Order: sequence, then structure tokens, then C-alpha cells
Amino acid sequence: MKQSIRSFLLFLVIALPGANIPSVFADDKVYRWRLAETWGPNFPIFGDTTKNMAKMVEEMSNGRLLIRIDSANRHKSALGIFDFVKNGQYQMGHSASYYWKGKDINTMFFTTLPFGMTTPEQFAWFYYGGGEALMKEVYDKYGILSFPGGNTGNQMGGWFRKEINTLEDLQGLKMRIPGFAGEVLAELGVKPTNIASGELYTALERNTIDALEWVGPSLDLRMGFHKIAPYYYTGWHEPATELQFMVNKKAYESLPADLQAILKIAMKAAAYDMYSQSMHESALNLATIQTEYPNVKIKTFPEPVMQAIKKANDKLLAEFAAKDPMSKKILDSIQAYAKDARAWTNFSDRAYLDSMDD
Amino acid sequence: MKQSIRSFLLFLVIALPGANIPSVFADDKVYRWRLAETWGPNFPIFGDTTKNMAKMVEEMSNGRLLIRIDSANRHKSALGIFDFVKNGQYQMGHSASYYWKGKDINTMFFTTLPFGMTTPEQFAWFYYGGGEALMKEVYDKYGILSFPGGNTGNQMGGWFRKEINTLEDLQGLKMRIPGFAGEVLAELGVKPTNIASGELYTALERNTIDALEWVGPSLDLRMGFHKIAPYYYTGWHEPATELQFMVNKKAYESLPADLQAILKIAMKAAAYDMYSQSMHESALNLATIQTEYPNVKIKTFPEPVMQAIKKANDKLLAEFAAKDPMSKKILDSIQAYAKDARAWTNFSDRAYLDSMDD
Repeated sequence: MKQSIRSFLLFLVIALPGANIPSVFADDKVYRWRLAETWGPNFPIFGDTTKNMAKMVEEMSNGRLLIRIDSANRHKSALGIFDFVKNGQYQMGHSASYYWKGKDINTMFFTTLPFGMTTPEQFAWFYYGGGEALMKEVYDKYGILSFPGGNTGNQMGGWFRKEINTLEDLQGLKMRIPGFAGEVLAELGVKPTNIASGELYTALERNTIDALEWVGPSLDLRMGFHKIAPYYYTGWHEPATELQFMVNKKAYESLPADLQAILKIAMKAAAYDMYSQSMHESALNLATIQTEYPNVKIKTFPEPVMQAIKKANDKLLAEFAAKDPMSKKILDSIQAYAKDARAWTNFSDRAYLDSMDD
Repeated sequence: MKQSIRSFLLFLVIALPGANIPSVFADDKVYRWRLAETWGPNFPIFGDTTKNMAKMVEEMSNGRLLIRIDSANRHKSALGIFDFVKNGQYQMGHSASYYWKGKDINTMFFTTLPFGMTTPEQFAWFYYGGGEALMKEVYDKYGILSFPGGNTGNQMGGWFRKEINTLEDLQGLKMRIPGFAGEVLAELGVKPTNIASGELYTALERNTIDALEWVGPSLDLRMGFHKIAPYYYTGWHEPATELQFMVNKKAYESLPADLQAILKIAMKAAAYDMYSQSMHESALNLATIQTEYPNVKIKTFPEPVMQAIKKANDKLLAEFAAKDPMSKKILDSIQAYAKDARAWTNFSDRAYLDSMDD
């Protein structure tokens, strides 16, 4: 049978009214979407997350929703993702919500906060404790749907060339620590700077900076910082960095319901998977660092330093809450949730970890 | 157009060879599956997980894979799930792998182990560290595919009517603690018993037993144990209890590839979601217990007691490894993985939680 005849018959079957047609017949259209990600091509873990999501969508949809991933080398605008998705230039984006704090301060609270929730606590908040609904409220006015996009787990406090013993040691310290965490440290006299990732190693080696934070063993190992900075400090500033999937609302609404479900669930599974992958790579890479570079010392800031950082953080968060009712609403939700969740974490995993040291 | 004419046209479109037809056309068949779960009807969290999975499958498949859930009241065999799925009586089951240790000792290691991994560590092991492949190896010979099925998080050590101060206090203690953890405590003189859940409260109240473990605040609150046992001990025996989805292998292979993907990803998302839900319910219910029953004391076993339990556990696990090469292979994988993962957990979340107390 000629394809044209087949097409005509198919037209008759599908187009004429009054049908009792299985709903799959109406939705055989192939949707070709594009996703812009902040990361460069083949960036580990972060980039695996978008590939993982797109692959799940393709398999589950039987090829009816195909998502092409453009990395930063292609779209040339690592921090243009929000606008790409808002304008519909891309149907989807993968980035981190706190990058948009200059556009809307309330986007900042959906990534992580200094002294905030751990990853399991934060996933519970997003999916069961009202976090997703608050995120929807913030992003709605931009025509963007925002979803959790993968967690790095607790990020390390950074690589330091000198040990931090007192608050004095932070005075004038040049540190690559972008975003809100940098603002917190600035309160204590740190000079936060931002430097492109490709120049970080040299900047640290040549003392252009004294310290830097990146992610944690999962992504730090390949950067080589352990070769030139012997002090690796434990984290306080990003206890549960959650990346973000963004979807153009109109594009999402143009999908049939089954593809909407497939997309949402693939994003969720990929977000959870990234936390598992981060745990995995962190464990392996930490072991490598400790075996091959036994001179690296893992330290925690002394108590008075931590106290001062916490105080500066509380002050800045209180200022946000005072300035904007939506900020207050989100911070109130996070703080109330974190209080109950932390009590449970302390009696469960923390008590357990402590007892394993006996 | 008459339905009969439509059907005939449809037949021409689909049945004639040489077609370039979108593959969705070949798979419009509706698969009606049944899942048997160990739990009673509307059992919280565990039962929510099967409903969550089935709902995701229905939405993503556009109704092409429908899974009816039979709870224990219907199939009348809470611990018959393995056989139901093996025999193909049910296409799917939801239970816990360690229930099958009487059939195959190697099924026991895929739920949790005393002093074993935490939930994030264990998810990383399953999905990135080789755990799933080992589970496949164990279940393959039964024609069953087994997948992670949802995590309770760290389970509490149980409700005790008297405080445990020394190893003497464990001598002759009658405790409801089934499975391997009961065997470990038996080494220290505890008399482990199993009692049906509906009779637990009365057994504890009437001193038929001195102590019991159930799950944790997420599921203990509704049981009311806090009203009659003032000591709530932190956990050691089930740090990351993972439930299990089982799928009859032949039934799985009879599904088209897209439905296989939908099923697998829905099971994974539901497994992860259960951990978030457990965190959520634990946090809320712990707050309720602490507010409404301030007399409840949360305690950790003293160090010498914990040491003795650990020693007994190590001894029994070494016996398993000596008896069966596959047991050794699985335990070696778990122990090597747990070592590296724990080092990371200690430097990340644990150091962070400790610093929050400063």
C-alpha cells in the first residue's frame, strides 16, 4: 500500500469526529525539545544529570519526546538559562536557582542556604513539606516551571593555603566564594572574588587568591587543588546544593498529559539520582585524595569562627525577611521545617554515626 | 462514520506490511497487572509507595499499564509475596528482601545490615556501586527481578520499659525484634520473640515483652508505644531499611520496551520518594511525641553495650561469609563500599551536623 493512501486512511480514522479511539492515537506526534544547561560539555555529574533525564524521557516516551542538550559551549551564555526558558528560546534549562537572585531575590532560597537543611531534609521539604509549591509561586510570574534538578550533597568549605585558627585569619583573606556565602564571609572581613573555573588553579597557585571553594571531592579532584592547598575545610555554606530544571510553562502545557508525567517523573528521578552519584563519586575521590595526597588535612573551622559566620548569616537572612514578605514566607517555611527535620536527623543518622565511633 | 468502517480502515493502516508507522501504533495494548504487597490495606508510607508507583505508571503509560494492588487482607499471605511473583500468580510484589532469608540467605543483605550503610550511602551502592547487579545475580535463578522499593531511613532501636545501663540489663530481656537483628541480640542473652503487630501494644503493656522495635516515629506514633514505654533507644540494627519491588521476569519481558522503562523508573522514583516521605513523617511525628509526651527519653545504648552488639554482629556476618561464596562476595562489596562512603559521610554531613551544635 502506498504511503499516501495509508496517510489518507489514517486521516479518516483520526480526524473524523465521534470516535472511540484509544488515546495513544491522538498523541503520536514527536516533540523535539532543546535544553540549555549552564555547564560546559561533558561536565561530570551535573551534565550526567541532564543526559540521564533526557534518556529516561526518550525511553519512556518511545521516542515521542526528544530533548537535545546544548551545553555552554553551544549557547554561549552559562547564566542566560533563565531568560532562554522564560522567552521560550529553549523549552528547558538546567542550572541552579540561586544564580537568579539578581532578577528575583526569592529564587535564591531554593538551592541551599548556609547552615540550612541537609540533602535528605531538603528533598523532604521540596516534595512533602511545601517547598515545591513555594518555588512554583516564585517562578509562576515568569512563565517558568522550576523543579529540583539534582543535589551535590554537602559541599566542602574549600581549599585553603593557610590554616584558619582565629577570626583574624579571615581578615583580608582573598577567597573565591561567589554568591550569598561570599556575602556572609565579607561580613567577617573576607574579600570574596569570583574567578572563571579555568583560571582557578593558577590563581590559587600564584597567590592571587588565598583560598577557594568549589564543590567537594566529587568534582574537586580533577581540578587538582589538593596539590597546592593542604587545608581542606568541611562545609557550612552549601549543605545541600540543589540544581534546577526549568521548563517553559507554555511548552509544558502543549504536551499531552502522558508526556507531561514522563517529563516530571524523569526530572525527579534524575534529581534524586544525582545525589546518589554525588555520594558515590565523593566517596571514591576522597579515598583517592587521602591515599595519594596524605599531606592534605581535613579540618573544621574552630568554634568561634563558626559562631561568627553563623551570626553574620542570621543577620543577612533576617534582613531579607524584613525586606520582602515572600522572602519571609519562604524563610519561615525553611526554618520551621529544618527545626523538626534536624531533631530527627540528630536522633537517627547522627546518633548512629556517633555510635559507630565507639 | 460508523465504528465498523473506522475499525476496518484502522485495520488497513495497522495490519498491512511495509509500513512506516510510528511505533506507538504497535503497542496500544492495555496490560493489566496485579501487585501483591506484604502490608495491610492503607498501611502508611509503605502502602503509599505502591500507590505512588502504580499512579506514576498509569499516568506515564497513558493507561496502557494498569497495576492493581492487593494488600494482605486480600491475598491472605503477607510473606507469600516471593512465591506469588516467582510462580507468576502476581506479576509484581512489594515486600522486603530480608524476609526471604529462609529461602536463600543471600537475599538478606539487600535490605539493611546492623551497623551497615546509611540510606544515602546505600542508594549510592545500589545504583552506582554495584548493589543492583549483585541483587540481580541472587534473584535471577528464581525468575524474579528485584529492585529497591523504598527506604524507611534509620530505624529506632526500640521502646524499652526499663533503661539499659549495662550488658546485664539485656540478660533474659524479652524483646520483639525479628530477623537477623534478633539473632545478634540473642548472642548477648536477649530472648527475641516475634508477635503480630496487632498484639504488640498489649504484649508490652502486660509485660509479656519488656521491649520492642518497630520502625521509628514515622510509624511508631500510631502504635502508641510511647504511652507505656518511656525509653526510646536510637538505632543500630536497621540503619537504612530498603523495601523491595519484585517483578516476574517473564511478565517483565512481555512488556514493550517503553513500558519496561516506565515501570523501572516509576519503581525507582517511588523508592526514593519513600525515603523523603519517611523523613517527613518522622520529623513531624517526633515533634508530636516530644511535645505531647515530654516524659519519653531518647537514649543511646552505652558504649560497652554497643561494642558487644557490634562484636556479635561481626561474628555472625563472618560466619555467613565463611559458609557461602556468594554471601562473601556481597558482604565484601558492602563492607568495602561502606568504608569509603562512611569516610565521606563523616567529613560532610556528620562534620556539618556537629558544627551546628557549636
